[in-house]
Amino acid sequence: MKVLVLGGDGFCGWPTSLQLSDAGHDVTIVDNLSRREIDLELEVDSLTPIRPIGERIRVWKELTGKEIGFVHLDLAEEYDRFEALLRAERPDALVHFGEQRAAPYSMRNTIAKRYTVDNNVRGTHNVLAAIVATGLDIALVHLGTMGVYGYGWSGSAPIPEGYLTVRVDTPDGEIDREILHPANPGSVYHLTKTLDQLLFAFYAANDQLRITDLHQGIVWGTQTPQTALDERLVNRFDYDGDYGTVLNRFLMQAAIGHPLTVHGTGGQTRAFIHIRDTVRCVQIALENPPERGDKVMVFNQVTETYRVRDLAELISKLTGVSIANLPNPRREAVENDLNVSRDRFMALGLDPTYLTEGLLEEIRDVAVKYRDRADTTKIMARSVWRKGMETSPDLMEG
Amino acid sequence: MKVLVLGGDGFCGWPTSLQLSDAGHDVTIVDNLSRREIDLELEVDSLTPIRPIGERIRVWKELTGKEIGFVHLDLAEEYDRFEALLRAERPDALVHFGEQRAAPYSMRNTIAKRYTVDNNVRGTHNVLAAIVATGLDIALVHLGTMGVYGYGWSGSAPIPEGYLTVRVDTPDGEIDREILHPANPGSVYHLTKTLDQLLFAFYAANDQLRITDLHQGIVWGTQTPQTALDERLVNRFDYDGDYGTVLNRFLMQAAIGHPLTVHGTGGQTRAFIHIRDTVRCVQIALENPPERGDKVMVFNQVTETYRVRDLAELISKLTGVSIANLPNPRREAVENDLNVSRDRFMALGLDPTYLTEGLLEEIRDVAVKYRDRADTTKIMARSVWRKGMETSPDLMEG
Repeated sequence: MKVLVLGGDGFCGWPTSLQLSDAGHDVTIVDNLSRREIDLELEVDSLTPIRPIGERIRVWKELTGKEIGFVHLDLAEEYDRFEALLRAERPDALVHFGEQRAAPYSMRNTIAKRYTVDNNVRGTHNVLAAIVATGLDIALVHLGTMGVYGYGWSGSAPIPEGYLTVRVDTPDGEIDREILHPANPGSVYHLTKTLDQLLFAFYAANDQLRITDLHQGIVWGTQTPQTALDERLVNRFDYDGDYGTVLNRFLMQAAIGHPLTVHGTGGQTRAFIHIRDTVRCVQIALENPPERGDKVMVFNQVTETYRVRDLAELISKLTGVSIANLPNPRREAVENDLNVSRDRFMALGLDPTYLTEGLLEEIRDVAVKYRDRADTTKIMARSVWRKGMETSPDLMEG
Repeated sequence: MKVLVLGGDGFCGWPTSLQLSDAGHDVTIVDNLSRREIDLELEVDSLTPIRPIGERIRVWKELTGKEIGFVHLDLAEEYDRFEALLRAERPDALVHFGEQRAAPYSMRNTIAKRYTVDNNVRGTHNVLAAIVATGLDIALVHLGTMGVYGYGWSGSAPIPEGYLTVRVDTPDGEIDREILHPANPGSVYHLTKTLDQLLFAFYAANDQLRITDLHQGIVWGTQTPQTALDERLVNRFDYDGDYGTVLNRFLMQAAIGHPLTVHGTGGQTRAFIHIRDTVRCVQIALENPPERGDKVMVFNQVTETYRVRDLAELISKLTGVSIANLPNPRREAVENDLNVSRDRFMALGLDPTYLTEGLLEEIRDVAVKYRDRADTTKIMARSVWRKGMETSPDLMEG
């Protein structure tokens, strides 16, 4: 298949581009390099030494003979160039990672809130409008988030894959209705993914677009078989308070002897997936697009759930580092259970990497290997959900 | 109260500004004049001869001694000026009409789709972000639409005011959940109002903003007691295929002897409200804001429902004009029932203008009076919901 990977230079986008290229697809990366620019703004860098996109692509070609294209383009700001690109390339599918993806960053200040909404909504809508405008039958695979559902909304019922059947009273008795799962976003970033859902639902119904939305859990891990081939292909690893995901932050903290930063009681239960499974899931979704029809195909892209304090205890036991319970900068339930349906990917053959298999390798091969690159002043989460909320001072000297 | 009316130069915004000024509120209009610019783009003009905003405000002052301020500002594009305006004016409330509001225009072409999404979502989000950024306790009243609910989703149950209680199965038995009514938008324009709903829900929950969302039916009529004071205060009246609302279009068609343009069978049931009631409802909502809390206050701003073909027959009988059943350019149910809760405004004292009282006056005082200003080549609806859908040729010579 001819595939454009939108946001193909990012944490999920880059290893997915390699996975798809390796699997024989004709891949072109479309990216505005905004993730690297935000590193400059935050004065932080990936723990792993990622290379410029041109070098990444060149090395991949040297090692495998496979070509990946690159177009430097801003989806939100350069609609006309994007539509022209679709007309010129006539791709079979788009994989859309091209959004600002950090919840803490999205709550950082007014500029970041506005950037997240404007960039994500405009970008996604431009993608949809361009597919319709060209009249091409292009399938769209989009990276959503488990955060669209909220945590604990359904009581003891597992979170379904996108749609929920509810019963409603009417004067003629109870009726059943299948609805998009109610939106319960916990940050401006998550909010934008709930807006995306409504955009997709409309364009599927009105224009019969073929759309798959992948509601992904928290990604952990760094390398995939392809990024591990050569250090110049290494994937990014974020450990800072804005972009670092909880488990990778713990792994890096363990590697440098920093107390594990648990927000509140750590009673939050979250869904996780290894980056190796992310790239496989996207490939599976890409190769199994829905028919043209009124409905978006939704997958829950998660492999297991853990309570944050249990993760911290696991890593503390493995490595001997202590745990620090810090003020929680987010507005969220102190404790929640979480039970997620993930039948679709399992039925399509996903064989997951579980946490218990991958943690030690991750600490050894990534966190310890690159620990000297860490800036300990960037570890604390500083973005708060409401003005006046407390954060912790640095626990280690810079 | 000190009130900024965002979009205060438009069809609902202008008479609302006068209503609020008349009621003793300190009103400033904030508008980018985009509605007048779209008239230029569509090469059409209000049937009524509306005056420039400066003249409107001057005449109002001459007649009543009351001052209305005006700030020419684009909510979507000029965030910093808007935030500075809030800090300088410190309003008690904002009334937000500042969005592209025509469904057919929003489906006209790619540019109009993108403009509608970008303008409406960015504008609304800028309003919310600015309220949070200033830290001022500003109540927000927003004009939504009945179109967020869709038509016929709830079977024989009346459409509730914003929230719906549903039952969900869990392993521990059935549970009740109150949800925002599922979104079923019928155009890109309606889609943007469903996106607004999610923005409001998030900012109410996260920042405890006081927000009222008014899900309005189709407005008919032109004048309010204030706009009728002087011809230079006249409200706009749109009859064209993009901006004209169904009933006003019929009234104008009757006045010039044009067949009444019914799309499809006319079996669509819709909710209606007279512009006189729109302005009263907004005043009631403004003067009864919710407490700071997690939840948006939602009103259904409608007074009665009619089937489109019944409206056409009513007007045909009153005036003798014929009815033309034309291809429907929209994707929508051919026929639907509609039953709407509107308890909140009635409980707060709204005494509606019903169709049967106002129609003849409207034809006499507006449609007949200004019929010579009509351009009959602009009557047909030309925006189609999907490429290739049929529209009708002009029924009258230009």
